Amino acid sequence: MTTTKEGPHARWCRYNHDGIVSFGLVDGATVDEVDGDPFTGYTRTGVQRPLAELQLLTPCVPPTFYCAGLNYKAHIEWGERRRNARIPIPERPDISYRAQSALTPPNSPIVIPAASTGEVHYEGELVAVIGRTARHVSQAEALDYVLGYTIGNDVSERTWARQDRTLWRAKNSDTFKPMGPWIQSGLDPTNLDVTVKVNGSVVSEFNTSAMIFNVAEYISAISEYITLRPGDVIWTGTDGGTDRIAPGDVVEISVPGIGTLRNPVISEAVASQ
Amino acid sequence: MTTTKEGPHARWCRYNHDGIVSFGLVDGATVDEVDGDPFTGYTRTGVQRPLAELQLLTPCVPPTFYCAGLNYKAHIEWGERRRNARIPIPERPDISYRAQSALTPPNSPIVIPAASTGEVHYEGELVAVIGRTARHVSQAEALDYVLGYTIGNDVSERTWARQDRTLWRAKNSDTFKPMGPWIQSGLDPTNLDVTVKVNGSVVSEFNTSAMIFNVAEYISAISEYITLRPGDVIWTGTDGGTDRIAPGDVVEISVPGIGTLRNPVISEAVASQ
Repeated sequence: MTTTKEGPHARWCRYNHDGIVSFGLVDGATVDEVDGDPFTGYTRTGVQRPLAELQLLTPCVPPTFYCAGLNYKAHIEWGERRRNARIPIPERPDISYRAQSALTPPNSPIVIPAASTGEVHYEGELVAVIGRTARHVSQAEALDYVLGYTIGNDVSERTWARQDRTLWRAKNSDTFKPMGPWIQSGLDPTNLDVTVKVNGSVVSEFNTSAMIFNVAEYISAISEYITLRPGDVIWTGTDGGTDRIAPGDVVEISVPGIGTLRNPVISEAVASQ
Repeated sequence: MTTTKEGPHARWCRYNHDGIVSFGLVDGATVDEVDGDPFTGYTRTGVQRPLAELQLLTPCVPPTFYCAGLNYKAHIEWGERRRNARIPIPERPDISYRAQSALTPPNSPIVIPAASTGEVHYEGELVAVIGRTARHVSQAEALDYVLGYTIGNDVSERTWARQDRTLWRAKNSDTFKPMGPWIQSGLDPTNLDVTVKVNGSVVSEFNTSAMIFNVAEYISAISEYITLRPGDVIWTGTDGGTDRIAPGDVVEISVPGIGTLRNPVISEAVASQ
């Protein structure tokens, strides 16, 4: 498989068509199907499909799923007021992990578990997708290892986050990690607007320039100890306060230059019917 | 692909032969190659290879990598003495995660990072490998979803574990998660002896009956919120104290009925030569 070089503004999606999973290049309202993938190489098959008719999947399946956790001061301060407790500002880009099992595609429902207390919040995040194997890379060269950027919703059950020893069910229950709609290359990750809407009303707005540690700093720090691999994702945290989502709601997270990650919210009772 | 049913004591390995990765059934000193895998179905190819000549890989590549973390009282008490601080006994089976990127095969070196303080410890663990999709399963039926058991070494840099906000480099630096040598079915996970030797001397011995939460309790609890998938692994924690390993050492973790996971230890300087 030879790698065709895309221009600097490629938009990669992944989709299921008649039971076959393919990567494709989004060009306006049309998707050019490819044989292969953006990580190991591909060729265009010549098949084009209307974007609106495709069942989009998460735009990649990460071998390892990294997350910044706390990475914006206003979000930490909001957490301090809620808990009435000190949360130290991170002094180094110590990364965390989320579970692959929780990833869910664009337009798929976020399912509120039957056992939930109902205190389930959205968290809009910019997501960096690694394009090439990275080990011992400097901050200056770190972004050369990024294929592009997508959007994540780090759905969080706040009661469980307080009660449990770990964030396993608070952050990693099935469907709690919507990601998509596609991977956009050619963006500057240090100056992107992230907007969260619930049922059409803006509930959260911030710019990625407010990150405590930026994407290049995370990649360089991780790669001192760990080999980042093609398809790995780094979720970069949310800013400010967050609020509840409930069955019947629709959450949309938009980043100009990427697009909108949209997911409806349902209850487990409905999901199992 | 039709699934051939193995007897209750199958021993599954995964290996690289001339650049081709296959699963195989270990029968004494011989491996029967299969086409397919133990999770989605397989057929025996009729090819047999001497076990001693194969380059074993981790016996599976988990979609999600679960770990119990603290799951034995004597290990928690040891940690309390070391840190001179209270570590609460877990009250519920709250699971944690490790990184797929850290997995390393039997006989491959554990590489001590150049930046390490040298306080790198072994941790011998029993590992359960999920065989079938599990959601909302009771404790009574939980072990029916296990393909078998293997061995893990939860290598830990204790200085970084104390210094960092998360366990990312303390527990997940490259090569810090040796797993193998193979997956053994037909075992009772509640009564297995785990023995760790460094350079031939026993340094740790415990029985899995001392787990705070056993494998069935973890599977049932996780599956209330999360879909466990074929190939997922659950590392079940270590008991008692642990100690340093250093370049030049050889670590062997043995469980009668499974076998021995053996890994040499080297320094990053040597690894990069």
